[in-house]
Amino acid sequence: MENSNIKLFVILVFLSSLLQLCKASKLRFDGKNGEFRILQVADMHYGDGKTTPCEDVLPEQMHSCSDLNTTAFILRMIHAEKPHLIVFTGDNIFGFDAKDAVKSMNAAFAPAISSNIPWAAILGNHDQQSTLSREGVMKHIVGMKNTLSLLNPPDIPDIDGFGNYNLEVQGIEGSKLANKSVLNLYFLDSGDYSSVPSIPGYGWIKPSQQFWFQRTSTKLKKTYMHNSNAKKAPAPGLAYFHIPLPEYSSFDSSNFTGVRQEGISSASINSGFFTTMVEAGDVKAVFAGHDHKNDFCGKLMDINLCYAGGFGYHAYGKAGWSRRARMVVASLEKTGKGGWGAVKSIKTWKRLDDEHLTTIDTQVLWSKSSTGARRKKPIGHQ
Amino acid sequence: MENSNIKLFVILVFLSSLLQLCKASKLRFDGKNGEFRILQVADMHYGDGKTTPCEDVLPEQMHSCSDLNTTAFILRMIHAEKPHLIVFTGDNIFGFDAKDAVKSMNAAFAPAISSNIPWAAILGNHDQQSTLSREGVMKHIVGMKNTLSLLNPPDIPDIDGFGNYNLEVQGIEGSKLANKSVLNLYFLDSGDYSSVPSIPGYGWIKPSQQFWFQRTSTKLKKTYMHNSNAKKAPAPGLAYFHIPLPEYSSFDSSNFTGVRQEGISSASINSGFFTTMVEAGDVKAVFAGHDHKNDFCGKLMDINLCYAGGFGYHAYGKAGWSRRARMVVASLEKTGKGGWGAVKSIKTWKRLDDEHLTTIDTQVLWSKSSTGARRKKPIGHQ
Repeated sequence: MENSNIKLFVILVFLSSLLQLCKASKLRFDGKNGEFRILQVADMHYGDGKTTPCEDVLPEQMHSCSDLNTTAFILRMIHAEKPHLIVFTGDNIFGFDAKDAVKSMNAAFAPAISSNIPWAAILGNHDQQSTLSREGVMKHIVGMKNTLSLLNPPDIPDIDGFGNYNLEVQGIEGSKLANKSVLNLYFLDSGDYSSVPSIPGYGWIKPSQQFWFQRTSTKLKKTYMHNSNAKKAPAPGLAYFHIPLPEYSSFDSSNFTGVRQEGISSASINSGFFTTMVEAGDVKAVFAGHDHKNDFCGKLMDINLCYAGGFGYHAYGKAGWSRRARMVVASLEKTGKGGWGAVKSIKTWKRLDDEHLTTIDTQVLWSKSSTGARRKKPIGHQ
Repeated sequence: MENSNIKLFVILVFLSSLLQLCKASKLRFDGKNGEFRILQVADMHYGDGKTTPCEDVLPEQMHSCSDLNTTAFILRMIHAEKPHLIVFTGDNIFGFDAKDAVKSMNAAFAPAISSNIPWAAILGNHDQQSTLSREGVMKHIVGMKNTLSLLNPPDIPDIDGFGNYNLEVQGIEGSKLANKSVLNLYFLDSGDYSSVPSIPGYGWIKPSQQFWFQRTSTKLKKTYMHNSNAKKAPAPGLAYFHIPLPEYSSFDSSNFTGVRQEGISSASINSGFFTTMVEAGDVKAVFAGHDHKNDFCGKLMDINLCYAGGFGYHAYGKAGWSRRARMVVASLEKTGKGGWGAVKSIKTWKRLDDEHLTTIDTQVLWSKSSTGARRKKPIGHQ
């Protein structure tokens, strides 16, 4: 590299780190009620807008139905739930049916932008099937208005995928935790399809991404648990990515909330990210999309594995089974003197796109008192 | 950090990289027959030497049996097989029964040292149970005579475990591949026991180690396949670590060579290293120890998963079922003009510690012509 190129590279890494820092710490719990509200929009499958028809709706809904129904649903959800953050978990556009990826994305994310609510997006397996590559799609997203999305961490330049980043949600302004991240959000690119001849099917989260996740989690835990305001347990974390992990197959109706109406379309092999999260210990729930007709949450080794259920109208689904969205609300505990403390509980529910935006399947994913796991003795035969 | 400390740190990293470089490229195929021969010694379980009794041998063998039988077996193997490298795959000492870790290790590795054959060692789950920590054990090993073992890669300072490194085996002196690594050896620390309360049992290979492996594999492939002597496929690789992967459970007697006489004591969760190796594409065989009564090799997705079978006499085993060792021999192809080319085949067999050092279960693990995997179309429902 020439000297001038090295300087340019250093400046770019610096600016990228600065952007990372600015975006990562922009979120904060609500001082009025101690809440942080996240709306998950899974699989919009946006095409060209009005001319893109719906799939799998009832015959009587068909004639007037298009991508605009997806847009209307987002606006209704924003109005009803007043989220502090909207997370789009991939297949935001259905590339094959989008003539122009940029136009399709601009239309798909327009409700989030017009509402002035911060939003974050990650990639699914269809976003790159129009006029832009995965890198191109993610770069476009990162430059859009009000988004906190980031391309990739600057400290691991050869990380796999596009759109691996984390966001910090700080405590209440003026409280002891005002400058601490009390809720950590991780976003990862779960890829599209396997590029390995002997492994058929979907992509997965690679070692480079897991290494980044692990490092980030360690750093966040250290910062949170350090100094006079020291906490005994790490701040809870939530992870968002598109393709479900193989561990989503661990449940049936006896031990999940919601429905499973199709197979779990994870990668055909296990790349270990579930293990990595269990070891990290801070992630309390994972939110995927991809399988539109599954909308359950099941808990395995203290981590909730959740689907959002299909949101978009130009996506396969089940006629008569409403499109839906998942809400997650984290609540802070009140301290003795009327102030606010750390996260006390994380709840979730879904809203159906029916007349009343019916709320279903409300459940507590995690609460502070439930972290009583004890050290088990290792089993060993030799 | 103070200025003088920074200088010291830079010097240390430089020296460590230099040592890495020196050790990594010290091995070479044999110019006489185009072979590279590796002896695997699994689970020596060395204690204090002569006073440490044998386990699970026939009653008539018991009275005269001690760690010295393990030593004698190594010497017999060296004499019979004339290996170019000896690999000790962990539980080299059985810490609980070794009064002094240093003395025990010095005695355990003595046959390799006295024979002047290069050797490499990794850690099992018992090596740290005497007077030294895992770091202490590995640091002692690295400083021993004739060993090519290394502590850890200098470029990933926060890597998990101790004893993650790779060795390159170069082509025949004077041949076109004299300065290329035609066979790559990876050594990893598979840990001891889980430190995660919700995960019982043994350790596993972590994301940081997999990230290092992936980077190293990519670098080696680039170097090998680059320039005028370009090869179409990467040089084959072999991986050595102590605890078997969960995928070792994929086999039964219908599809492996050898025996399975006890369960597969892998970690209780899957950390994805098998997937990482499949994706990397260069590793053709994995060699573990840990389960002394299993000695099979089975092939899954073009990777052979092999046990060596128990070697050490102060280790559980099966009376009447001989202690054993695994040999691996890689052979180069002959080029038109009587020269030597790339690796043509990799064979393996075991030797029993009986009167004739009987050879059993000879099999071809990989041959150059067998790499005909074709790109499969991805399966996708949405």
